[in-house]
Amino acid sequence: MSKLRVESFTISLDGFGAGPEQDLNHPLGVGGTALHGWAMATKTFQKHLFGSDSGQDGVDEDFAARGFQNIGAWILGRNMFGPVRGPWPDESWRGWWGENPVYHVPVFVLTHHPRAPLVMEGGTTFHFVTDGIASALAQARAAAGERDVRVGGGVNVIQQYLRERLIDEMHIAISPVLLGAGERLFDGINLPALGYACTRHASSALATHVVFSRQ
Amino acid sequence: MSKLRVESFTISLDGFGAGPEQDLNHPLGVGGTALHGWAMATKTFQKHLFGSDSGQDGVDEDFAARGFQNIGAWILGRNMFGPVRGPWPDESWRGWWGENPVYHVPVFVLTHHPRAPLVMEGGTTFHFVTDGIASALAQARAAAGERDVRVGGGVNVIQQYLRERLIDEMHIAISPVLLGAGERLFDGINLPALGYACTRHASSALATHVVFSRQ
Repeated sequence: MSKLRVESFTISLDGFGAGPEQDLNHPLGVGGTALHGWAMATKTFQKHLFGSDSGQDGVDEDFAARGFQNIGAWILGRNMFGPVRGPWPDESWRGWWGENPVYHVPVFVLTHHPRAPLVMEGGTTFHFVTDGIASALAQARAAAGERDVRVGGGVNVIQQYLRERLIDEMHIAISPVLLGAGERLFDGINLPALGYACTRHASSALATHVVFSRQ
Repeated sequence: MSKLRVESFTISLDGFGAGPEQDLNHPLGVGGTALHGWAMATKTFQKHLFGSDSGQDGVDEDFAARGFQNIGAWILGRNMFGPVRGPWPDESWRGWWGENPVYHVPVFVLTHHPRAPLVMEGGTTFHFVTDGIASALAQARAAAGERDVRVGGGVNVIQQYLRERLIDEMHIAISPVLLGAGERLFDGINLPALGYACTRHASSALATHVVFSRQ
């Protein structure tokens, strides 16, 4: 069966996956952009985000690249899709990524508030799932076929899938920054008790990369 | 003035500074020994702990060595001194380290229960301080003179000194292991709000090393 994977999810030294006070000007919360220095320097992110041929090779690039390999669908929490909270006031918010988002496959957005699917350019369609993580995963697996499903985040969504032991592999990058507040990835999560172990560890000048695998 | 430093304090990927259920057979809590793989391989620890001339050079050794440079006194929490809880039943517990402990300078042990100073071989004397962290620091500074004071831990003691902004520099090693439970170094601690920033970051195959400095 295809895998459920977390890739390139970055936390701070003090364990936060995003800064506090996310809003339109701070998609990653206050201070959250600094988390992603390692990723922004890579060929993969330069290409996916900016269509640029610059960017660097190395350990960081290896991890960034694997995150896009063999992915047939994504699952995102609603806060990763945008800053709108509560019922959708209208259809105007179409994601952080412009008309041609970086995904190029179906994306399942977990929300409590129904909304019609949103077909974007380049193969990305946002589907809004209101009946929980199991339903989102079933729909994403059906869309992905033989390929894997990637959970984009945020912290709360990853934690929900971890608690159900549904994640097969999780690549986490630890950036040498402090956020001080926000959502902690490992709060209330006992990974060894859930059957996960650290199966890979590599570092660059910009981040420490670890892979957790379900045993 | 001499500095107050934390050195070679190691946490797991999930943020724990020691495993759960510390006792006589688990000085670092269950699973805690795995934290210190990076340190055990170094020349400094091989020499200090085992009197051995083996051990490796490199990034890990650089950090291990600096932890013993210019240290004139130590401060330890009582649980680092031993597994005994409550009032001292007798004088029989003399630390984890044998008759010639690794410190070779005065060591101030924070405890709620008074006990006479314990003079060991090799220059180590354990002083038991019952009137709090400020008193322990004043006594340690007086003993250290021009040299620095090192806080050995554990988590609770480091947190108390951090909250008072008394620590000047803190070297933390992050080991690629999961503990799942125990005491989290950064629980309830907002380092940026306390004025700390990450000022150094280096990695080896066995650990990621970071230094936090008070700005």
